[in-house]
Amino acid sequence: MGKIKVAVLVGSDSDLAMAQETVKVLEELGIEHTLNVASAHRTPEKVKKIVKDSEANGAEVFIAGAGMSAALPGVVAAETIKPVIGIPFEGKAFGGLDALLSVIQMPPGIPVGSVAVGKAGALNAAIYAALILAVKHPEIRKKVEVYRKKLSASVEQKDKKLQDIGIKKYIEENRR
Amino acid sequence: MGKIKVAVLVGSDSDLAMAQETVKVLEELGIEHTLNVASAHRTPEKVKKIVKDSEANGAEVFIAGAGMSAALPGVVAAETIKPVIGIPFEGKAFGGLDALLSVIQMPPGIPVGSVAVGKAGALNAAIYAALILAVKHPEIRKKVEVYRKKLSASVEQKDKKLQDIGIKKYIEENRR
Amino acid sequence: MGKIKVAVLVGSDSDLAMAQETVKVLEELGIEHTLNVASAHRTPEKVKKIVKDSEANGAEVFIAGAGMSAALPGVVAAETIKPVIGIPFEGKAFGGLDALLSVIQMPPGIPVGSVAVGKAGALNAAIYAALILAVKHPEIRKKVEVYRKKLSASVEQKDKKLQDIGIKKYIEENRR
Amino acid sequence: MGKIKVAVLVGSDSDLAMAQETVKVLEELGIEHTLNVASAHRTPEKVKKIVKDSEANGAEVFIAGAGMSAALPGVVAAETIKPVIGIPFEGKAFGGLDALLSVIQMPPGIPVGSVAVGKAGALNAAIYAALILAVKHPEIRKKVEVYRKKLSASVEQKDKKLQDIGIKKYIEENRR
Amino acid sequence: MGKIKVAVLVGSDSDLAMAQETVKVLEELGIEHTLNVASAHRTPEKVKKIVKDSEANGAEVFIAGAGMSAALPGVVAAETIKPVIGIPFEGKAFGGLDALLSVIQMPPGIPVGSVAVGKAGALNAAIYAALILAVKHPEIRKKVEVYRKKLSASVEQKDKKLQDIGIKKYIEENRR
Amino acid sequence: MGKIKVAVLVGSDSDLAMAQETVKVLEELGIEHTLNVASAHRTPEKVKKIVKDSEANGAEVFIAGAGMSAALPGVVAAETIKPVIGIPFEGKAFGGLDALLSVIQMPPGIPVGSVAVGKAGALNAAIYAALILAVKHPEIRKKVEVYRKKLSASVEQKDKKLQDIGIKKYIEENRR
Amino acid sequence: MGKIKVAVLVGSDSDLAMAQETVKVLEELGIEHTLNVASAHRTPEKVKKIVKDSEANGAEVFIAGAGMSAALPGVVAAETIKPVIGIPFEGKAFGGLDALLSVIQMPPGIPVGSVAVGKAGALNAAIYAALILAVKHPEIRKKVEVYRKKLSASVEQKDKKLQDIGIKKYIEENRR
Amino acid sequence: MGKIKVAVLVGSDSDLAMAQETVKVLEELGIEHTLNVASAHRTPEKVKKIVKDSEANGAEVFIAGAGMSAALPGVVAAETIKPVIGIPFEGKAFGGLDALLSVIQMPPGIPVGSVAVGKAGALNAAIYAALILAVKHPEIRKKVEVYRKKLSASVEQKDKKLQDIGIKKYIEENRR
Repeated sequence: MGKIKVAVLVGSDSDLAMAQETVKVLEELGIEHTLNVASAHRTPEKVKKIVKDSEANGAEVFIAGAGMSAALPGVVAAETIKPVIGIPFEGKAFGGLDALLSVIQMPPGIPVGSVAVGKAGALNAAIYAALILAVKHPEIRKKVEVYRKKLSASVEQKDKKLQDIGIKKYIEENRR
Repeated sequence: MGKIKVAVLVGSDSDLAMAQETVKVLEELGIEHTLNVASAHRTPEKVKKIVKDSEANGAEVFIAGAGMSAALPGVVAAETIKPVIGIPFEGKAFGGLDALLSVIQMPPGIPVGSVAVGKAGALNAAIYAALILAVKHPEIRKKVEVYRKKLSASVEQKDKKLQDIGIKKYIEENRR
Repeated sequence: MGKIKVAVLVGSDSDLAMAQETVKVLEELGIEHTLNVASAHRTPEKVKKIVKDSEANGAEVFIAGAGMSAALPGVVAAETIKPVIGIPFEGKAFGGLDALLSVIQMPPGIPVGSVAVGKAGALNAAIYAALILAVKHPEIRKKVEVYRKKLSASVEQKDKKLQDIGIKKYIEENRR
Repeated sequence: MGKIKVAVLVGSDSDLAMAQETVKVLEELGIEHTLNVASAHRTPEKVKKIVKDSEANGAEVFIAGAGMSAALPGVVAAETIKPVIGIPFEGKAFGGLDALLSVIQMPPGIPVGSVAVGKAGALNAAIYAALILAVKHPEIRKKVEVYRKKLSASVEQKDKKLQDIGIKKYIEENRR
Repeated sequence: MGKIKVAVLVGSDSDLAMAQETVKVLEELGIEHTLNVASAHRTPEKVKKIVKDSEANGAEVFIAGAGMSAALPGVVAAETIKPVIGIPFEGKAFGGLDALLSVIQMPPGIPVGSVAVGKAGALNAAIYAALILAVKHPEIRKKVEVYRKKLSASVEQKDKKLQDIGIKKYIEENRR
Repeated sequence: MGKIKVAVLVGSDSDLAMAQETVKVLEELGIEHTLNVASAHRTPEKVKKIVKDSEANGAEVFIAGAGMSAALPGVVAAETIKPVIGIPFEGKAFGGLDALLSVIQMPPGIPVGSVAVGKAGALNAAIYAALILAVKHPEIRKKVEVYRKKLSASVEQKDKKLQDIGIKKYIEENRR
Repeated sequence: MGKIKVAVLVGSDSDLAMAQETVKVLEELGIEHTLNVASAHRTPEKVKKIVKDSEANGAEVFIAGAGMSAALPGVVAAETIKPVIGIPFEGKAFGGLDALLSVIQMPPGIPVGSVAVGKAGALNAAIYAALILAVKHPEIRKKVEVYRKKLSASVEQKDKKLQDIGIKKYIEENRR
Repeated sequence: MGKIKVAVLVGSDSDLAMAQETVKVLEELGIEHTLNVASAHRTPEKVKKIVKDSEANGAEVFIAGAGMSAALPGVVAAETIKPVIGIPFEGKAFGGLDALLSVIQMPPGIPVGSVAVGKAGALNAAIYAALILAVKHPEIRKKVEVYRKKLSASVEQKDKKLQDIGIKKYIEENRR
């Protein structure tokens, strides 16, 4: 395993579709990372080992996503002093409120920085990791600046297109 | 430390007032127990050690209470195959919903049996531990039977008093 | 009816798909059990009779699952001093919050141990019953130990596979 | 015990302050009633007996109030075909949402008619009982008509007073 | 228009599928009724007229169902002293919580008796109307008694079938 | 009664302390107004009369505040085509969620513009009324512009003071 | 760009299907308007520019719709003293509660008038804009009066059709 | 103004008591910082200026806390590519759920890392800022390591004290 900057963990392989959103952005920004499935409740020792191994491999930020009683981000945060970004995943019964409250309501002294529930959060966890790394690494700062400019430009272009072709055509084209 | 049947853990010393409800009932039922403050996030190794030590001392049931992102019951459940009873404690922001969802929404394979939020739950955790122990220990079954009869009798007596003195006097007397 | 260790009750035959999750695990662990449909509101006498008959047949643990105003677990708990495990089933209007609060918010003295809402809870109710029985029955303890090891191993294998084939292939394979 | 028209039950003597709101209105409307403390979970047989005795004494409507996992109204409804009015009482952890969902989410075939949470509900349960009785009893219909006219008049008088003395004085006077 | 006992109102024609559940049970119990679409916000005068006309035609109970800011039951209750049964209909954004709180949280003096959210409530509103009418009309009481017996019997038969054919076959048969 | 621009209605005299927040701002901005207590459920005819009278007196905007099943704003909106601003007042059981959903979830065609729950909403209802009136009345626009400048300036001054005296002194001074 | 009366903004092009509901009603009422996609978080300067340009083009009312952490309506309100109507859009995780609370809970001094969540709100935002404009513009008042009469008539016709053909046929016809 | 590493902003001076929790920890860890009151809605230009000035002064992390429709963290995040930590403050009506959802549900591309609601979050925001800075600054990493050891030791000491003096004395001593 080569050097990494970000270690991504999810609590179940059913979370991998969400994790893909995170991984895609990390790749887009050229940030070395690992991705593991490990459960705070079913494989607590494995979680601990991944945290230690990741640190040994250079990990400066952790991203941990889980659903339901989403203990994984907090358990990772208990094992490291690197910043941990938590992603609460949606579930059937509570729409993600269970995971959100489990991730965010950490006790004094052991924070997790939580992003939005579900897909937007999975994507934003990668961006937030990049923002943290950008504090230290100028080359990541540059990539983030480019990303943000593209993001703004994309909204502007969508609005321009809307002004050009009108709402009906816009919606029709997006449907296809 | 002598032999115990129940190990009680709470995540913070601010939970001890609640834990007292649990301890009182365990004492009333003559069930040997220990009580520890240990945090899933601040002292994860300590939690693990308490679970192992408690098992070595004979613990057959665990009771774990915590507030906010209440990871403690789940973390205990990850370390033992003894039944774990979780108590979600109330907090200021969400009235205990955060703790409840954190305690109850355990993933497949690692259950926690949760009781009610707050004081009623703290009391009931002790009763539920007794019900579990009563499956094996006839002397605890007897104590539980007596407890339940007293409980019913107490409600009946309250109703009898209400019929005797009427609602106004009843409320007045209780106020004092 | 032969000897049983666990009696499972659900409030409606529309809950049977969920109950199957419970029954499958009980069978896998070789725990003798019965399964009945009985409603706390529509057939209160039947519920009582099932509880008494189950106890006569040796039931040491009850599992009761219901949706909406899920009174069944509490009503069973009122009729026995065996531990009752409640499963709150999801509904359309409140995603299971109605059932969860009905199951968990039991008054002092008559606890129900609630597991997660829905499918995870249905599976975990069986595991939790096994953990309770394992306190008394060494042969069940052994089965539970095996189950837990398999569970951890399964997560480890999933992670291994992920490391081997990568996230894209993993997701593709799972989709099929 | 003389003839009654309404039987009021609450699940705990801590609910009596609320029940007093109900009882006051029943007295004001001259409706014969009884009031009992009986718990669906702690004294299920007693609940059943009260329902049968109340019916024998002429009860045409039941009012049942409870907090937390408020099973009492549903359990009463399971034992009678008289209309049951449920009052969900407020609790500390969920502000009455637990009781409300427990009372209202009854399964098909066994309805409970629920009124508002807490004090407003306790008062309105008595009014609603009167409205039901008024369908049959002309003398109660007359009392209800008078009650409603007084109610409207009281709001009108408050507005008149507000126009007369202005908001500042009004608030000052109410504070005293 | 002939004599009726129950007047059913819904706030929108999109609620008619739900209203059909109500109407079916009223028909099954032989209770004369009317059904109208009228909106508390879009046709307030029409609502008032329907209430007055219904009373003139003999209506002894009102059933009013609405979704979102479900003002209809309360507005009907403001115009009559007959008992009003409210049905909160589910909506997309809040799963029926908006309608439930709008229906149930009536101010002191003007109660609505609310039943469950959605389909179960629509059915139960008809039963509850029958229970109210049964206080006065012996022939409806008899029909309700028959209904309740059938209801219990149906649950018992389902359980018998489950015991006979087992859970797998039961689920398979229901799927068809 | 002289000419007015805004008619304020609240559902109960217990809402007057909140209404005072609204009235104070209207006075500060020199906007003529009336204030009435009238209940959508207890005095529906009075509400209608106040709406008609207010329109006759020149009212161009309505403000209606209510708690619980807060039907008042919607009922006013049903009687006028002037814009109605709704204020959801807090209650004990649901912290204002009941009133908020009742006020905001209006059906297609009859909107209410809702402001924040409670005190902030009571104040903002007056500002929002002024913003609406400012579309037409230049003298109100000027007053609103002054108000907004003062508002910004006040925040700036607070920050300046904070920079000058530091957080400890600031908090101490505010406590007095 | 010609003169407009209403400027509509949405935070993302995925909100355009909802915005179409708003635009349709504005067109039906003959109210000149613009529609832009602009994000409070991704293009804050653009939002500001649209507000200034819209005011220069005569905009008297703003409509701003957004989902999730729906900051757009508040950010627009911070840049103008024209009334801003907020539409909270539904999201996957919280059904629109996140957007609703973000839109409605504005601080003292900077109100947004919020309409219902989702499609009903999108339609009602246009109506509410028309009601505000009608305070000043007699020709819009006339259009609104016609709209409201049609709305009432439409409900009346639906009820008439229901009386004519009965509920079964009505539901069948609507299904087609 | 000297060089800083963290810029703290709160939306209102009523949030300063909470901000003090943040500031205390930053001071304890020797991290240079500023603290400003600035409102996303009342002083949007000021917020922007503070962000730019803070960056010019060396700020590497922003902490922004707000209540109600807590737009401040998101608005800061829109103006910088430094990581922004959001603190949702509690409010009366929704216990902080409004602020939490406003802070956390950021759209794709512009993340905020949110910590717990209220006091625990205010404290943890400072810790999380330190964890982020520790990625780059070895001297902060050392301070964080010391902080974490003290934190664990403090929990261990509390447990030791509990074992020594027992629960009754412990609670008594804490009460004083």
